[in-house]
Amino acid sequence: MATETNPLVDDELVDFLLYSVLDAEALCELPAYQQHSKETFDMFIDSVRRFARQDLLPTYKPMDENAPTFRNGRVHTHPALPALYDTMVELGVLTATRPESAGGQRIPLLVHTLASAYLMAANLGAYGYIGLTLGAAHLIEAFGSDELKRRFMSKMYDGEWTGTMALTEPHAGSSLGDITTTAKPTSEGYYLIKGSKIFISGADHGVKDNVVNLTLARIEGAPAGTKGISLFAIPRLREEDGQLVSNDVTVAGLIHKIGWKGLPSLAIEFGDEGDCRGWLVGEPHQGLRYMFQMMNEARIMVGVNAFATASAAYYESLGYALERKQGRELGARGGDMVPIVRHSDVRRMLLRQKAIVEGSLALLATVSRYGDVAEHGVSEDARERAGLLLDLLTPVAKTFPAERGFEANALAIQIHGGYGYTSEYLPEAYLRDQKLNSLHEGTSGIQSMDLLGRKVMAKGGAPLRALADEIHATIGRAREAGCDPELCTALEQAVATVGAVTMELGQRGMAGDADGMLGHSWDYLDMFSTLVIGWQWLSMAASAKTAPLSEKRRRATEIATQYWIRTEVPRIDVLANLCRTNERSYIDAQPEWF
Amino acid sequence: MATETNPLVDDELVDFLLYSVLDAEALCELPAYQQHSKETFDMFIDSVRRFARQDLLPTYKPMDENAPTFRNGRVHTHPALPALYDTMVELGVLTATRPESAGGQRIPLLVHTLASAYLMAANLGAYGYIGLTLGAAHLIEAFGSDELKRRFMSKMYDGEWTGTMALTEPHAGSSLGDITTTAKPTSEGYYLIKGSKIFISGADHGVKDNVVNLTLARIEGAPAGTKGISLFAIPRLREEDGQLVSNDVTVAGLIHKIGWKGLPSLAIEFGDEGDCRGWLVGEPHQGLRYMFQMMNEARIMVGVNAFATASAAYYESLGYALERKQGRELGARGGDMVPIVRHSDVRRMLLRQKAIVEGSLALLATVSRYGDVAEHGVSEDARERAGLLLDLLTPVAKTFPAERGFEANALAIQIHGGYGYTSEYLPEAYLRDQKLNSLHEGTSGIQSMDLLGRKVMAKGGAPLRALADEIHATIGRAREAGCDPELCTALEQAVATVGAVTMELGQRGMAGDADGMLGHSWDYLDMFSTLVIGWQWLSMAASAKTAPLSEKRRRATEIATQYWIRTEVPRIDVLANLCRTNERSYIDAQPEWF
Repeated sequence: MATETNPLVDDELVDFLLYSVLDAEALCELPAYQQHSKETFDMFIDSVRRFARQDLLPTYKPMDENAPTFRNGRVHTHPALPALYDTMVELGVLTATRPESAGGQRIPLLVHTLASAYLMAANLGAYGYIGLTLGAAHLIEAFGSDELKRRFMSKMYDGEWTGTMALTEPHAGSSLGDITTTAKPTSEGYYLIKGSKIFISGADHGVKDNVVNLTLARIEGAPAGTKGISLFAIPRLREEDGQLVSNDVTVAGLIHKIGWKGLPSLAIEFGDEGDCRGWLVGEPHQGLRYMFQMMNEARIMVGVNAFATASAAYYESLGYALERKQGRELGARGGDMVPIVRHSDVRRMLLRQKAIVEGSLALLATVSRYGDVAEHGVSEDARERAGLLLDLLTPVAKTFPAERGFEANALAIQIHGGYGYTSEYLPEAYLRDQKLNSLHEGTSGIQSMDLLGRKVMAKGGAPLRALADEIHATIGRAREAGCDPELCTALEQAVATVGAVTMELGQRGMAGDADGMLGHSWDYLDMFSTLVIGWQWLSMAASAKTAPLSEKRRRATEIATQYWIRTEVPRIDVLANLCRTNERSYIDAQPEWF
Repeated sequence: MATETNPLVDDELVDFLLYSVLDAEALCELPAYQQHSKETFDMFIDSVRRFARQDLLPTYKPMDENAPTFRNGRVHTHPALPALYDTMVELGVLTATRPESAGGQRIPLLVHTLASAYLMAANLGAYGYIGLTLGAAHLIEAFGSDELKRRFMSKMYDGEWTGTMALTEPHAGSSLGDITTTAKPTSEGYYLIKGSKIFISGADHGVKDNVVNLTLARIEGAPAGTKGISLFAIPRLREEDGQLVSNDVTVAGLIHKIGWKGLPSLAIEFGDEGDCRGWLVGEPHQGLRYMFQMMNEARIMVGVNAFATASAAYYESLGYALERKQGRELGARGGDMVPIVRHSDVRRMLLRQKAIVEGSLALLATVSRYGDVAEHGVSEDARERAGLLLDLLTPVAKTFPAERGFEANALAIQIHGGYGYTSEYLPEAYLRDQKLNSLHEGTSGIQSMDLLGRKVMAKGGAPLRALADEIHATIGRAREAGCDPELCTALEQAVATVGAVTMELGQRGMAGDADGMLGHSWDYLDMFSTLVIGWQWLSMAASAKTAPLSEKRRRATEIATQYWIRTEVPRIDVLANLCRTNERSYIDAQPEWF
């Protein structure tokens, strides 16, 4: 079986992205990263990828087959998890991006994204505890008082407690303005919390005793809707007289998820006994704002989850295609059976997976680098420009790997034939894992509204102009490097088309036809993502002309670039036409016609 | 929850297809069907759909949650199955299409397809026993001696034993020419069989004691490859002195399938003890030919499975979208939350599912009707023409519902949001079920080779000319009925494009560039299927202008037709261009570049 030798993520691709395409070493010239170098980056990634392959991957299938259980009010998770968690903390994965003041190494997000991709590809659920704890602690780091940092953040960054986000309520789903959990002030510095949350990952488990829930709730008397929502830290156990005692956070039930089986998803109750204490993070009524300031990072991490799941499956199917013998080559009569990779339809499925998977990673790395510059760039201009690009590309970086990754995961099953339809092989588990990524942290539909309704229309169109500049610069670089001029021209035309469509949709929206604009947000996201991935491939193709690459990586880069630009980029015209002609079928279809 | 009221398949759509679009009553004028009428058709369908909704659907989830087990050499299936099987036999489902001489009612395949769709949508695995038994018995009916019919076919058609197909071997997969199971002649009229088979559905179970395996094997000394394969009937238990005794067919293992949990998939061994007796069906070395003569029907049935799975999921998501309240309409400030069907992105996902699901059923019904005329048409010309169309469209009828149905199934999950990611709701189970349909009875890739390499190139292009005539006739009918002329024109152009591409690919193939032709078979299948479904929708739209329909069905037909022709048919140009320019990325990509 190929599984034991699954590389999870291609090392040469990671090096290529870091040091050729995205010049990670240039980041070391920024004051924030000056203690870093290629050596520290490589050391971090090497230790993480070794752990991912040797220790984490072998635990994936056992966890998939033994989902968490709920007994006597407590959630029981796989026994391998505590040691895995501790090792990940020791490797520095949890705090890698945080500053020294928070106990971290302040490694660029770019490097962290690429390193964590190996962990996610090895065992998505097990890595989930790290991602959730980092997200929760980071919120307190960014917005909490020193008192809260001492009380909660340090314990999380030290690896002593875990953390999670508890946003969703059963009746409200993505509609966060409708949450009803309440917070009643007391004179003791905390609030009494009451409410129900659902789909809360890792709110209880056997990894650590305590969990800090970062929760949205309404302070009594707060304004209605999204403006009246505050952020609270609510530990499962609270400290009293040096002891950890119950904080009246109870598990109401375990949700039977179809994937991510290492990490339990729970329905929880705050304050069933009237004694659940929550500590306000930052100012009252600013909860949603705080949460959304962390959203780019959270959504990029979902994109990396999605990439990782598709990458692991790609390598399973590649290993199978190289080993499994069946049939003969086209036109051959008799002779031995050949590995199925020799059938062109199998190579088509591999190439499609590769184009999706590696294009996704390139985008996620690019966006992560914008995140680094947006936070630590030397000039105000550089930070602002990177921030624009980060904001603009986040919905694509979240959605493309999830949606197309799901398609890639299905192809990995297809290559396995009947064997792919069994739980003896891994691809079906990866397919189940993948589906979550189009749902959590904002569904793909919500991302499409965010892209068209907010992001591209922001600041008089400055983000899109910045992106067009980036793409034109890449096209120029590709031309100079000697890439196929036809591919360069095709991408140039696609940029123009997307720009023109954006203008027309924006004008339609401003003229009051909100449906005629936002009703095309799915077409727009699809079109925009197709362009962005074409850009990423062309950027890799340009760098591949001079980078020190193996013949294999060079040829793969060329052929995947050609594949994406020739087969997918032409769809941009079809989608653009739907937007421009204001195709109404999917807008006008009435609920009562279904 | 909507599940208890899930209609599975829309009754009005079925009536519309039968009596308006496809004029099923005209079939009653054929001698073979003269005992039938709208009344007998309706009676049959009514009794079947009632059973599907009331008795079969409630057993689906219990079977999905309690997969078959393998203990002490026997396979144990869900205890509800024997009674369900007997009821289906009583309803006449098993023999409905067979002539009276075989104990049936000779109902048109068209009617049977639509009726069995309800059963498949209710419980795919449970219906599977019927489908497999029918297929096995039908092979003996068509090619077996009277002795074999008495011995095996009658027992199967009577509902006393079940049957199945045992083709696949572990090393050979789809490459049937490489099978190695052997058959040694004896002087007793039977052969001694030895070999291993895998992925054999229902070769053992708790529904009936005995199962007849229709198996491919090589008679000793037979020529190599596909020409040396013979067809055998091999019962699990054989009759000796009026007793049923073991026939040395053993279960080697249970395959852990990810769906179709009501029906076990097994690895079996023939002749471990040297005493497995098989009876030759028809002539020696004709096994593959016999099997492929039954293949159209088998593949259409896979298409119906796929349709049914997507239809059941569509209705789950529609029920959810109508009930689940979340968020507010675009532009609304405050007020109550609205059912999510009011969000245009949800309607887009419903419309896409509907276009795929109902377009699939229309195609499957159309193709079934060609099957009826091909077998029982009055004139030689009519039979031949229908046969050409049946052969040509079978790969599309098998593949489109499976591939696009999988996409529709994923949308049904997406509409359920986080709830869709749990096994408390049905869509995830339907997604698992669906994946098999792109794999069994010839993978989608194999279908694409069959379409381009065999079907469209057959008989000097006569099948494609016949199809073009049919589509042009539909366009003429649509124009006369007053359908949107732009949609008619778009489809007309698409027919021309597909015709031109076919010619060019054929010429390329004849010029010796087999890769340049068959390397585009996936593009071709996608392009061809998109046209065919556009034709089906336009045909429904034309009929809807005059048929006695509810306002709901009429509007749904109009909007789905517009949706498909405006959003999908334009992709034909993109795909055609890949074929015409002989895009080589997915052909030239070498195994060592991955």
